[in-house]
Amino acid sequence: MAAPQESPDQGAYVPTPRTVPTRSRDRASYDRETVHAILDEGTVCHLGFVRDGAPVVLPTLYTRIGEHLYVHGSTGSRPLHSARGEAGLPVCVTVTHLDALVLARSAFHHSLNYRSVVAHGTAHQVTDPAEKAAALDALVDQVVPGRSADCRPADAKELAATAVLRLELAEVSAKSRTGEPNDEPEDLALPYWSGLVPVETRYGTPAPAADLGADVPLPGYLAPAS
Amino acid sequence: MAAPQESPDQGAYVPTPRTVPTRSRDRASYDRETVHAILDEGTVCHLGFVRDGAPVVLPTLYTRIGEHLYVHGSTGSRPLHSARGEAGLPVCVTVTHLDALVLARSAFHHSLNYRSVVAHGTAHQVTDPAEKAAALDALVDQVVPGRSADCRPADAKELAATAVLRLELAEVSAKSRTGEPNDEPEDLALPYWSGLVPVETRYGTPAPAADLGADVPLPGYLAPAS
Repeated sequence: MAAPQESPDQGAYVPTPRTVPTRSRDRASYDRETVHAILDEGTVCHLGFVRDGAPVVLPTLYTRIGEHLYVHGSTGSRPLHSARGEAGLPVCVTVTHLDALVLARSAFHHSLNYRSVVAHGTAHQVTDPAEKAAALDALVDQVVPGRSADCRPADAKELAATAVLRLELAEVSAKSRTGEPNDEPEDLALPYWSGLVPVETRYGTPAPAADLGADVPLPGYLAPAS
Repeated sequence: MAAPQESPDQGAYVPTPRTVPTRSRDRASYDRETVHAILDEGTVCHLGFVRDGAPVVLPTLYTRIGEHLYVHGSTGSRPLHSARGEAGLPVCVTVTHLDALVLARSAFHHSLNYRSVVAHGTAHQVTDPAEKAAALDALVDQVVPGRSADCRPADAKELAATAVLRLELAEVSAKSRTGEPNDEPEDLALPYWSGLVPVETRYGTPAPAADLGADVPLPGYLAPAS
């Protein structure tokens, strides 16, 4: 008798050859909530594509709406031109958060605690005006939650000058390292300090533009958490 | 009469078609010191390469020695296998620092202040033992300056299990945005706050490993600056 077939995990992305790492497989996750949380925390992604057979990696703004990742660009930029056609543009979008430096007794076991998401797929330029407007709002809110409702919306000319790429989240994985250094048992007594140095990303005090009128107060969404 | 030929700037990388952006050219720089400073400040790069015709972008450790960029990997990883041969592996290595959120009155002019370096070229796996040892020391010191002299060096087995890729810094550019929001003149009187929110990356208090002996003090290179 065949073993009962496992029901697919609705909460997880399906692993594929390119989302299963060749090493440290225990650090990989396909859980949707894990992937979404890492994506939602970030501001800049690294967008990879192929131009004339060679890889190109550019930092850019992104956001997530459901199972779609949206990447910001200008209509003048080369990769977004390629994404106009029906064939789209094969991309890899990577988001990385650095959490701690991991100092082991041995040079070999030095590492980083981090969380990252790598999404593979074919990106398409967004042409539907309503989808584009929603993506642009989300791009602004990814930088500062609540901001899109508190600024002048893009006019027709600005909308036309902005390109947005959409990538479906399908072939995607998270990878992370957490916890203590992994020293070899025979190294534990060596006289070298071992441990973690946390890496913290914080927002500093907002600085008003030089030409901001004195009557415009700091909005609540920028006020320091008390 | 022909105009006098400009002497090449020894302090700058030579721009190429793929290092000259199609837009915001004023944000690009080819100055070596600028490029080096951005690289030297970072911990994680995003390494792009092409696998089966599709782009792959992975976060990884890197360091710089002179005009060489070294990227860390495992001998088991797929890209580093490809870099073993004489042909090497075409790569794009990108390092990005986020400096501030730029909030304009208009959604369209929202932006980020950042500094990034993009390096194109063909990477080769380092085979010379002395070069490999120097690169591994530099990789540890990139994470924590001074640390490579204060830990157990890699033994022969560990050295064999570590792969290091070398990329010559030749086709490279820096790109940055600094300063105030660029609002349209007709938007300046709108009642929306405009300005910068600084983004700061800091190191927290070092946390000793659970199995660290009480007799091992925090090293000076980890002590908070006073």
